[in-house]
Amino acid sequence: MDFELTSEQQRFRDELHEWVEREVPKDWARDLERRESSYPYELWDKLAEGGYHAVSVSADYGGQGGDNVTQMLLARGLGRSLAGLTWTWGSTSFAGANSVGLYGSDEQKKRFLPAIARGEMRFTIGFTERGGGTDLLGGMRTEARKVDGGWLVNGGKTWCTSAHVSDYILLIARTDLQAERRHQGVSLFLVPGNAEGLTMSPIPSLGQRSLGAFDLLLEDVFVADDLLLGEPNQAWYMLLPTLNYERLMLLGLCCGILDGILEEVLAFAQQREAFGRSIGEFQILQHYIADIAMARRQTELVAYHCAWLDMIGREAFLELTMAKVIATEHTSRAADLGIQILGGSGYSAETHLQRYWRDARLYRMSPVTNEMARNLVAERLGLPRSF
Amino acid sequence: MDFELTSEQQRFRDELHEWVEREVPKDWARDLERRESSYPYELWDKLAEGGYHAVSVSADYGGQGGDNVTQMLLARGLGRSLAGLTWTWGSTSFAGANSVGLYGSDEQKKRFLPAIARGEMRFTIGFTERGGGTDLLGGMRTEARKVDGGWLVNGGKTWCTSAHVSDYILLIARTDLQAERRHQGVSLFLVPGNAEGLTMSPIPSLGQRSLGAFDLLLEDVFVADDLLLGEPNQAWYMLLPTLNYERLMLLGLCCGILDGILEEVLAFAQQREAFGRSIGEFQILQHYIADIAMARRQTELVAYHCAWLDMIGREAFLELTMAKVIATEHTSRAADLGIQILGGSGYSAETHLQRYWRDARLYRMSPVTNEMARNLVAERLGLPRSF
Amino acid sequence: MDFELTSEQQRFRDELHEWVEREVPKDWARDLERRESSYPYELWDKLAEGGYHAVSVSADYGGQGGDNVTQMLLARGLGRSLAGLTWTWGSTSFAGANSVGLYGSDEQKKRFLPAIARGEMRFTIGFTERGGGTDLLGGMRTEARKVDGGWLVNGGKTWCTSAHVSDYILLIARTDLQAERRHQGVSLFLVPGNAEGLTMSPIPSLGQRSLGAFDLLLEDVFVADDLLLGEPNQAWYMLLPTLNYERLMLLGLCCGILDGILEEVLAFAQQREAFGRSIGEFQILQHYIADIAMARRQTELVAYHCAWLDMIGREAFLELTMAKVIATEHTSRAADLGIQILGGSGYSAETHLQRYWRDARLYRMSPVTNEMARNLVAERLGLPRSF
Amino acid sequence: MDFELTSEQQRFRDELHEWVEREVPKDWARDLERRESSYPYELWDKLAEGGYHAVSVSADYGGQGGDNVTQMLLARGLGRSLAGLTWTWGSTSFAGANSVGLYGSDEQKKRFLPAIARGEMRFTIGFTERGGGTDLLGGMRTEARKVDGGWLVNGGKTWCTSAHVSDYILLIARTDLQAERRHQGVSLFLVPGNAEGLTMSPIPSLGQRSLGAFDLLLEDVFVADDLLLGEPNQAWYMLLPTLNYERLMLLGLCCGILDGILEEVLAFAQQREAFGRSIGEFQILQHYIADIAMARRQTELVAYHCAWLDMIGREAFLELTMAKVIATEHTSRAADLGIQILGGSGYSAETHLQRYWRDARLYRMSPVTNEMARNLVAERLGLPRSF
Repeated sequence: MDFELTSEQQRFRDELHEWVEREVPKDWARDLERRESSYPYELWDKLAEGGYHAVSVSADYGGQGGDNVTQMLLARGLGRSLAGLTWTWGSTSFAGANSVGLYGSDEQKKRFLPAIARGEMRFTIGFTERGGGTDLLGGMRTEARKVDGGWLVNGGKTWCTSAHVSDYILLIARTDLQAERRHQGVSLFLVPGNAEGLTMSPIPSLGQRSLGAFDLLLEDVFVADDLLLGEPNQAWYMLLPTLNYERLMLLGLCCGILDGILEEVLAFAQQREAFGRSIGEFQILQHYIADIAMARRQTELVAYHCAWLDMIGREAFLELTMAKVIATEHTSRAADLGIQILGGSGYSAETHLQRYWRDARLYRMSPVTNEMARNLVAERLGLPRSF
Repeated sequence: MDFELTSEQQRFRDELHEWVEREVPKDWARDLERRESSYPYELWDKLAEGGYHAVSVSADYGGQGGDNVTQMLLARGLGRSLAGLTWTWGSTSFAGANSVGLYGSDEQKKRFLPAIARGEMRFTIGFTERGGGTDLLGGMRTEARKVDGGWLVNGGKTWCTSAHVSDYILLIARTDLQAERRHQGVSLFLVPGNAEGLTMSPIPSLGQRSLGAFDLLLEDVFVADDLLLGEPNQAWYMLLPTLNYERLMLLGLCCGILDGILEEVLAFAQQREAFGRSIGEFQILQHYIADIAMARRQTELVAYHCAWLDMIGREAFLELTMAKVIATEHTSRAADLGIQILGGSGYSAETHLQRYWRDARLYRMSPVTNEMARNLVAERLGLPRSF
Repeated sequence: MDFELTSEQQRFRDELHEWVEREVPKDWARDLERRESSYPYELWDKLAEGGYHAVSVSADYGGQGGDNVTQMLLARGLGRSLAGLTWTWGSTSFAGANSVGLYGSDEQKKRFLPAIARGEMRFTIGFTERGGGTDLLGGMRTEARKVDGGWLVNGGKTWCTSAHVSDYILLIARTDLQAERRHQGVSLFLVPGNAEGLTMSPIPSLGQRSLGAFDLLLEDVFVADDLLLGEPNQAWYMLLPTLNYERLMLLGLCCGILDGILEEVLAFAQQREAFGRSIGEFQILQHYIADIAMARRQTELVAYHCAWLDMIGREAFLELTMAKVIATEHTSRAADLGIQILGGSGYSAETHLQRYWRDARLYRMSPVTNEMARNLVAERLGLPRSF
Repeated sequence: MDFELTSEQQRFRDELHEWVEREVPKDWARDLERRESSYPYELWDKLAEGGYHAVSVSADYGGQGGDNVTQMLLARGLGRSLAGLTWTWGSTSFAGANSVGLYGSDEQKKRFLPAIARGEMRFTIGFTERGGGTDLLGGMRTEARKVDGGWLVNGGKTWCTSAHVSDYILLIARTDLQAERRHQGVSLFLVPGNAEGLTMSPIPSLGQRSLGAFDLLLEDVFVADDLLLGEPNQAWYMLLPTLNYERLMLLGLCCGILDGILEEVLAFAQQREAFGRSIGEFQILQHYIADIAMARRQTELVAYHCAWLDMIGREAFLELTMAKVIATEHTSRAADLGIQILGGSGYSAETHLQRYWRDARLYRMSPVTNEMARNLVAERLGLPRSF
């Protein structure tokens, strides 16, 4: 048993911390987040200069080949300051580097991965459909029909983060309408963001505002054969590792937000005064702060445990599903407590807690609702499916 | 024992409901709220046309003289659609109609109340100071010095709702620096919103966005003698009834938000489908909805109980303090559950739950933090002061 | 609107309080409860001497004809000291006085009610079956077959409180096996506790220990015709008022337990010292105490609201079902907080909190689980049945 | 990073599991627990036969020298069946094997450790004083005065588990009344259980009933010099490692109870039927079960993390204090959910959940209240002392 990061991982973490403080500190992130659907190009560029887009790309294709723990450390280090804007890095890392790295042909890898590593290409995902939500397969109306040299895609997707600035959208569509079972006959495509027939409309939302979330409408969108990822009709089997990776990064992000919350409330409690003393003396606020610290410790442990399971190649679906619920509920509650500690200031958009709180709220529903996650946990424990 | 509204109160409630649906429905309110610090004049005007500014003004001065239960019904009926924008009505009703009605001279009543009833005059409060928060007296740095014909006020206030469009700000300031005890020597003034020496800067905030919250800086602001409310140095004794009234209206508002939440989640649960059935069939979502209904019943009962206590003139500080905590925690939790029921849609700024959720979050800290409120409850139960 | 008890109700409450302090105080009740399945005859007798068995019996039959609020006050006043032992009074009041009062023939009323009022006859219920639990109808295996002069009952019941000392058990059995729908064809019997063919075995349980809970086995138990209550095959329609009454009494009992908890923790907090001061000074314990006070206020209000609804004859199933959940969860949580306030002492069987805590735990599952109750609430709000 | 047990640890765990199922299964443990203050000698003897008393004794003194992880595995494996009766092993392991192993002279080690390893000697602790509770030092009235050949101890202790059958009580007493600071001048003694002047009275308690808890009265109890443990007046510095060890074992015990709870509820959910289906199909019960599984994962991870920190010799006070709160609150809540899943059966003393629930309740207050633990966590995070 060993809970220690390697010295290399520790160095990565510490250098990242300094870089974040210098280049993308909290106040800067807060102002960036506020601009609804106005993409934070400056953040993307800084990440590129810092070399961070390369972390999740294999060294064979110009990347740094960071292991999962290292990538989680990246999500955490960024999340502490950026909160949900961490997906500026994460979406491409997940929908691009990770998916192409796992399922891309050699040609696709050469075409995409080095560009990703240099910060020259952005990816996002298009999985969810309007009215579909958690029921990915049951709600899927988007279809791709084989035509000469490619596919014609028709349908719609929703909640596509930063789709308007993405070079490619990793999109799932039904390709075999005759497939006997619903999870067969679906394929993954890399749809160009500027494809003809593709229109986008923004969904104003509660958090991660500058990133923008979009509804996509696809009308006879042509996708060339070389933008099909993996084998046709096999998408379902490719999804699990991809989704696992997304959850791992989310766990790292939650740890980062918890780091940020704890920092903020400790600083506030030590400086703010009321009734003639530092509010940090008030026992009830101390208990809230202790709860935040305990939330962080538990989140951190389940996060690293999952990264370790994934790294040693052990099946981790149950663990990741539990960890997703655990991490997001701790984070959401800690942000709520944090606002309460700040009192009136916590309600001001000029402090950070409200941003952590809004962003964290999303993760209890995305990428899967915690209710659905609990259903899945129970099913894995041997109980009948309840949905 | 009788839990029934009078038939007059019921009629008021029902007519209000229709008016709200017709004039200020939820979608309209949602779009209004979004415009940061851009005051909703159209809402103010509609309330004036509807005659609602007159409800809290005595019939002797051109108002309707609604009792406290009726005023609470107004807060509730408006709150269901407007959520925090209900303070468009509430601030003037509380800082103007109620305060002048209780403590104004005959002259002041004649000057202000009819204008309030006609919707021609807006009021807000300036109680809290930067760095003061809950510790109103200990944090008070604002002072008023007697000069010829009036007072010169210096200092600053914070979290003044809609101060930029207010005709008067009900402001508390220290007027006797030699007073032996901190709660002596403070006075209430009606500071004109356009007074010279008064500057305002907006505080961007998490909710109630279009109302705007402001920091005030007062530098040698002259306030004429006829704008002193009540006796000088006696403000502390005048505050309690005023604050009680504010809490009563907040209780009504919480009931209204809970009405809105329950409506929204029931409608969504009955229409949205997943996994081949209405999501309203899922037991866990049913339990969340049952919890919301139970939160509403409890909030409603404590609210009416307090209104009744106040109406029959019984000391209600302990009850109101408990009710404030109860109502705001139920409302905040119900809004959180509501978002979860809506899933992804709950995160979209195009639905209402996120608005209820942001607005409700404020009330756990304002007008007093629930932590401070619990301290006060314990003190009233006979325990030593813990703050 | 009026939240006041009548002066008569107030007098009843105050006299009861004195009587409880004098005759059945907490310490006495604590020692009584400890004796597993050893019925507290002395408590029964004191209640008889005090005239309390007569409260729920109509004046026409030698009782006091207390209204529902008065009966709830009785449950509350007793519950504060007796906690679950309140059922010493309640079982007979509910299974006897109330059921016979509502559905008995004139002859039955004359036979049973005066004896109940004088404290000479004990009743209990036999509704639940082993393996049946909440699913009363689906789990019902007990049948009664018509024979000459009466019925032969076969089957089994469980969780029958104090069955071993009961003169009659109000028992539900299937009497028409051909009935088209499950809720038809069931009847209510008053089975004599000493009937031949009836055997009982105790179920050791977590709380209410001296009362005893029993499994009943019925083998060809003969029940004479004059012990059938109401019309045959109509029991289902008679159950609702009976169960409503049981819930009202439970609400009163919860209020009483909360009274007891609050008293105990306040006394402890004021007297116990640690770290050189009274533990009542510790802010976190003050917050727990404030929470208990708020739990009590909410429980009290929903309880009286339901009693009022019932008194004015309004359908109250939804309200009672919500109130049952609200009251029992508040009580259970308050008892848990109370133990925590007492610290080590709270774990000692020599203090009262552990008794409140064990007894209160039952009511979250009985007479209906709070899960089932939430299902029913959701159904009444218009959602499809989820069970 | 590595979350795996060594193969030796795994073997230990698996063999223990088999032994527990064979020798001390749950039903057996349940009957044992019920006998108030009637010590479970048969359990002690079985543990001796199984060699388990030797696990925490160094190999140099006839023990097995199990590392901390192994000892935690023992607490966990036992706890799953025995719940609080695990202290039958744990008290001696903690107050005897661990304390003497750390601070005993060579002579003392030879005298006590082999006897402990063979299961021939029982130890318990006497730290807490009546009215002292968490404030160990402030509440300490017990004094030891140096006399010829030993010490005379006067005072009292409380909550001494199984004191009546203990050969030695590890007792803390003030030995220097002139010490400048309260944590100086206290010493540790091994007081013989049969010493003259020592009287015990049982404290009936909510859980761990057969173990018995005792109040001790010490009147001129003579303790020979060779029963002083470590240096005189230095007890405070010796306490921390001892208390850390107690907490580690408590963490293991919590994991075990959680194992037991999860087993029980899964078995029940799969077998019990209601409304025509297995109750395991009900979504709300599935969510409770998923919550229990998540509680276990978090508890397990913080437990192993602390054992690891301790094993590598890193200061772990903050971590252990957080883990204590985390583990006990998860366990207590899981037991509560478990009862609810079992419904009526959960209230029967014939099932296990009520036993887990009662025993687990203690650990939120002992060996330190979770409130005090949170105070300490906050202090370690840099906030001023709040108690």
